[in-house]
Amino acid sequence: QEAVSAAMEVAELVLVSGGLGPTPDDLTKEAVSSLLGLELRLDKKVLRKLEELFKSRGYTGSPNNFSQAEVPEGATVLPNNRGTAPGLLLEEGSSLVVLLPGVPQELRGIFQEDLQLLLNQRFKGRAEPVHHRMIHTTGIPESRLSELVSQHLTGDMGPVTLAFLPDLRGVDLRLSARCTSAKEAKERLAKLEETLEPITAKWRFEASGGDIAEALNRTLFEGGYTVAVAESCTGGLVSQRITDHPGSSDVFLGGVIAYQDEVKFSQLGVSRLAVAKHGEVSEVVACQMAIGVADRLGASTGIAITGVAGPGGGTSEKPVGTVWVAVSIKETVEARLLRLVGDRHAIRERAAQYALALLYRRLIDVRSKA
Amino acid sequence: QEAVSAAMEVAELVLVSGGLGPTPDDLTKEAVSSLLGLELRLDKKVLRKLEELFKSRGYTGSPNNFSQAEVPEGATVLPNNRGTAPGLLLEEGSSLVVLLPGVPQELRGIFQEDLQLLLNQRFKGRAEPVHHRMIHTTGIPESRLSELVSQHLTGDMGPVTLAFLPDLRGVDLRLSARCTSAKEAKERLAKLEETLEPITAKWRFEASGGDIAEALNRTLFEGGYTVAVAESCTGGLVSQRITDHPGSSDVFLGGVIAYQDEVKFSQLGVSRLAVAKHGEVSEVVACQMAIGVADRLGASTGIAITGVAGPGGGTSEKPVGTVWVAVSIKETVEARLLRLVGDRHAIRERAAQYALALLYRRLIDVRSKA
Repeated sequence: QEAVSAAMEVAELVLVSGGLGPTPDDLTKEAVSSLLGLELRLDKKVLRKLEELFKSRGYTGSPNNFSQAEVPEGATVLPNNRGTAPGLLLEEGSSLVVLLPGVPQELRGIFQEDLQLLLNQRFKGRAEPVHHRMIHTTGIPESRLSELVSQHLTGDMGPVTLAFLPDLRGVDLRLSARCTSAKEAKERLAKLEETLEPITAKWRFEASGGDIAEALNRTLFEGGYTVAVAESCTGGLVSQRITDHPGSSDVFLGGVIAYQDEVKFSQLGVSRLAVAKHGEVSEVVACQMAIGVADRLGASTGIAITGVAGPGGGTSEKPVGTVWVAVSIKETVEARLLRLVGDRHAIRERAAQYALALLYRRLIDVRSKA
Repeated sequence: QEAVSAAMEVAELVLVSGGLGPTPDDLTKEAVSSLLGLELRLDKKVLRKLEELFKSRGYTGSPNNFSQAEVPEGATVLPNNRGTAPGLLLEEGSSLVVLLPGVPQELRGIFQEDLQLLLNQRFKGRAEPVHHRMIHTTGIPESRLSELVSQHLTGDMGPVTLAFLPDLRGVDLRLSARCTSAKEAKERLAKLEETLEPITAKWRFEASGGDIAEALNRTLFEGGYTVAVAESCTGGLVSQRITDHPGSSDVFLGGVIAYQDEVKFSQLGVSRLAVAKHGEVSEVVACQMAIGVADRLGASTGIAITGVAGPGGGTSEKPVGTVWVAVSIKETVEARLLRLVGDRHAIRERAAQYALALLYRRLIDVRSKA
């Protein structure tokens, strides 16, 4: 209550997230209503939606649940299509107070579906909107990318700024322009993107959600390819990334997770001799896995990963982080040795990302040569 | 600068996260140093560590990188074992200012490895520490669990509080006690846990990181079992969850991701007749997948999932969210029909969670009957 009333004194818009759940420790609605002197009333529309939701899940709600249909008088209800707690918008004096659920995907959904539009209308022309353009890259470290960019960009950038957003999978370059005119912003962003093109081309990919797997799926589909995946240390992560995206069934046939050597022999046709001679983490085994899985599942491309994700299992010759990645396109296969740093999670993420990016780039190469 | 100096006026401890990266938009260190009137100096120990890190990755750092070895004079360096930017601790008057990298796992690492201890020493005896105990549950909705708990708990709980922390995988019950004496806190938490035991027993599991896959791996290992996984709509998620945990190679043999029907036939021995008669999302196909994968990979238990994750592919009879899960233990197999709500991501997460929990509970049942 103290925080909300302090915020209302200085701000025209107060956003509160979390505490709208069905349990007694969820108190946001009650606290804000009592602060603003508003009664809670049962909203029949919200109640009906809750009842339908519970019915579809096959259980009847409890009294706790139906407390979520109570709404402060005068509030505008922002429907939640991903959960049970709707967003609530309250006007009080010159302040707008918005209560949103804390679950990130529910909050994002309400913002994108309703709130964004309402706020745009209300604060129209008063804020200088920031326009963005994202350039997704993978395979180049943040520091190296930044060095290349700063060598290339000279002089005053005006209202345009650049941010480097790194994670385990790559670096996103966020271009921002703060202009009142959307047209001017778009032009400036397009110009900067063009200037950056020669530097970023080698590492860049296009994907609305920023996932290279999305770009790979699209490229496979456009080329009429299918893909099968053989994984050892990544344990299903590559397949999971590919199938995260709707429509992956157009290109993804399936995969084999060959965690133990016996599974590599029986399900992928890896040769016992190769493992005995070179070890399971080796170029020849990675290549046999990629070819084996594509062959057995009938796919035109294959991805394989075998490595040491740690924390145990490393040797002086093949320490934790040693990973072989192979990709096959029809009869050709190539492998790469990676020496990755980080904990088990980071090594698995980086290996999966590398493998997805390698097949993506090879397909782009094939296409540009055709 | 404004935010940090405002915070220093009212607080003895100011934590700043993010902006310590190698690119020009990372300005936290420069801004705070200039606020406090401190020069940046090259720290040889940090520099050496950076150089070693780059060497192990096989590239030489750029000048941008080595700016990360610059440290405000008088600062205590908190080593970062997961990335390049160390944490920095600065004393200024009665305030302690701590700069930490923004990458969550790096921040957490520095806190757990060094900062926690330093802060405990500094603020010793002055703060009433909060002691926690987590009870992990899965399979019961937050509202229902809360109802059961509130029916069971009566009277004043003293310095102990309860929070319900739900996500797609389940609900964690966090028990907190605010007592100066650690012994008293522990006793109170143990007593509350005991009181809650009869309500939570059916849904509860023990896992240090809160993941049912960790509990499953341990239970498989203790019983001398191995496991193989056959997945359709979850596309590798179950296998990935199992192999997230070090030591999973003791129990996990491998898996088959049978996204297309042909892969179900050729790699898992699912019968064409069963698919033609009942559809690929059916009890009989789920059971054939679980038995088939365990049999072919030589495992004593099997997990299978086949369903409609959406957004496309639903029918009136089998709408999006219809999922069959099967688990086998030696010669027995059982399947469950789920009707899940949410988007593709939520349906996949919920299905994987359900499957992992089902095998876990069956193994506990077998053990308690033995």
